[in-house]
Amino acid sequence: MRLVVAGTMALDTIETPYGRAEKIVGGAATYIALAAGYFTSVGVVSVIGYDYPVAMWEALEQKGVDLLGVKRILDRPSFFWEGKYNYDLSQRQTLNTQLNVLDSFPDAMPPSYQEVPYLLLGNLDPRLQYDLWRQCKAQPVVLVDTMNYWLDNARAQVEKVFEIATIVCINDEEARQFSGVPSLKKAARIILGYGPKYLIIKKGENGALLFCEEGTYFFPALPLEEVFDPTGAGDTFAGAIMGYLASQGKVDLPTLRHAIAYATVLSSLCVESFGVENLLHLSPQEVQQRYEQLSQMMQPLGVPLS
Amino acid sequence: MRLVVAGTMALDTIETPYGRAEKIVGGAATYIALAAGYFTSVGVVSVIGYDYPVAMWEALEQKGVDLLGVKRILDRPSFFWEGKYNYDLSQRQTLNTQLNVLDSFPDAMPPSYQEVPYLLLGNLDPRLQYDLWRQCKAQPVVLVDTMNYWLDNARAQVEKVFEIATIVCINDEEARQFSGVPSLKKAARIILGYGPKYLIIKKGENGALLFCEEGTYFFPALPLEEVFDPTGAGDTFAGAIMGYLASQGKVDLPTLRHAIAYATVLSSLCVESFGVENLLHLSPQEVQQRYEQLSQMMQPLGVPLS
Repeated sequence: MRLVVAGTMALDTIETPYGRAEKIVGGAATYIALAAGYFTSVGVVSVIGYDYPVAMWEALEQKGVDLLGVKRILDRPSFFWEGKYNYDLSQRQTLNTQLNVLDSFPDAMPPSYQEVPYLLLGNLDPRLQYDLWRQCKAQPVVLVDTMNYWLDNARAQVEKVFEIATIVCINDEEARQFSGVPSLKKAARIILGYGPKYLIIKKGENGALLFCEEGTYFFPALPLEEVFDPTGAGDTFAGAIMGYLASQGKVDLPTLRHAIAYATVLSSLCVESFGVENLLHLSPQEVQQRYEQLSQMMQPLGVPLS
Repeated sequence: MRLVVAGTMALDTIETPYGRAEKIVGGAATYIALAAGYFTSVGVVSVIGYDYPVAMWEALEQKGVDLLGVKRILDRPSFFWEGKYNYDLSQRQTLNTQLNVLDSFPDAMPPSYQEVPYLLLGNLDPRLQYDLWRQCKAQPVVLVDTMNYWLDNARAQVEKVFEIATIVCINDEEARQFSGVPSLKKAARIILGYGPKYLIIKKGENGALLFCEEGTYFFPALPLEEVFDPTGAGDTFAGAIMGYLASQGKVDLPTLRHAIAYATVLSSLCVESFGVENLLHLSPQEVQQRYEQLSQMMQPLGVPLS
């Protein structure tokens, strides 16, 4: 196993201008595992209730995803989230959150996971993120995600997790909130000050920025005809990054830039269907075609003409 | 003269989280002329009142900007705009607009302007934009900007101006409003359907997209430590594009991509001071240094590693 991911596995009810989907499979770890599983072997740490569909469990297993670290609770429903997006899908409103089994999220990982070289800590209570990291015995490469709730309510614990991260991967609002400054350039310096080697700031349809010692790099999002459902795009992005890195066995700037490009491609596919639908049927031809489209968009300027 | 620009010359009162500036020089044509004037010889069509500062008039003339096309009205004040930006400068609120002399905007250009090969029609009544274009005798390369007000109130006239444009340069909100679709990719197809060869969609701190027959290209904004005042960034951007194109004497994809890169650089400098302050003191060394920084951010991905 090359990569362990920790995160929620959930049921989501989602409303977008394109339609409504009731209680479809979601949760960060579902998206992450499917995206990362495209590149490498993945084990999952999570918790589900009685209503997480067997079909999805089987689909994950069929793709080679190891589910030994997923606790199953048979008398309570899975974590549930309901949200609604505005007309251009740039903003969403949470209508309902039911934690359900989430208070039983495992704080331990199976022994077979503990030598893993890559660890993706999806958005969870930072205390849990830290505890899971401590069980790893091989000093893994660590990617950390978080959200505004933890920045508000467990700031010191988030800092502690940033200190053990190789890569912090958060969105622009979270970067501004954590750092307390509106300039992303300044925010990046503050966050990198905690120790991570790389900071990736996700900006949704506006692409992503990579900050590191070597400089600042920009990755556009692919312009799409229709975005059906942005849910899980950020998780898909993080999953693809770590999946690709784990498949390459190294974390340097050129490899990470390729990883972010693949992450951009998989996210673009993710948002073109409701839930994880497209992630279940990734076509290498389509992935490669979009990768080339992205390369073209990022063509270098060349030498200025004057 | 290589380039004629038409647009407002105004006084602005601006409040940002970094301070407040009362009745400083602004207006699209002021920003455009200063940015374009860095690259090429510029003539301006505009109107000012008695309160437009003589010092700015002289500064423009000293930079070689031809002001023969600027009507001076001695008994009324200049166009006035007052606005306030939110904490991260991503949104602004108009507090006060006084049209003043704007109803006397010239609908004719001096004979010495009429053979000009490049024409920049800044945000103005589209009827006026069209009338000015009709006076050009040498089939100029035309860049058109507009704003939501005209899309709401003079839609048919905006379409007519898009038909004669070589380049349409608007922001993402305007592109969505004009096309009626949230997807910028679809919006681009609709707008290009009116005839312009190139569509540039500005996204503020999120960079810019170029759509054309050859493909889609992305330009990140330079991440900045402090943005003091975003006023005029879009005008500076358009001015630099046309200034650079006019200086090169051709409009093909590589030249336009260099132009947009320079436009990104000049806009980044513009927003780091209040009003036109930084545009008055552009340093070729600083421009070149930021151009290289931008080139680095846009490094190509290279061949994927797997």
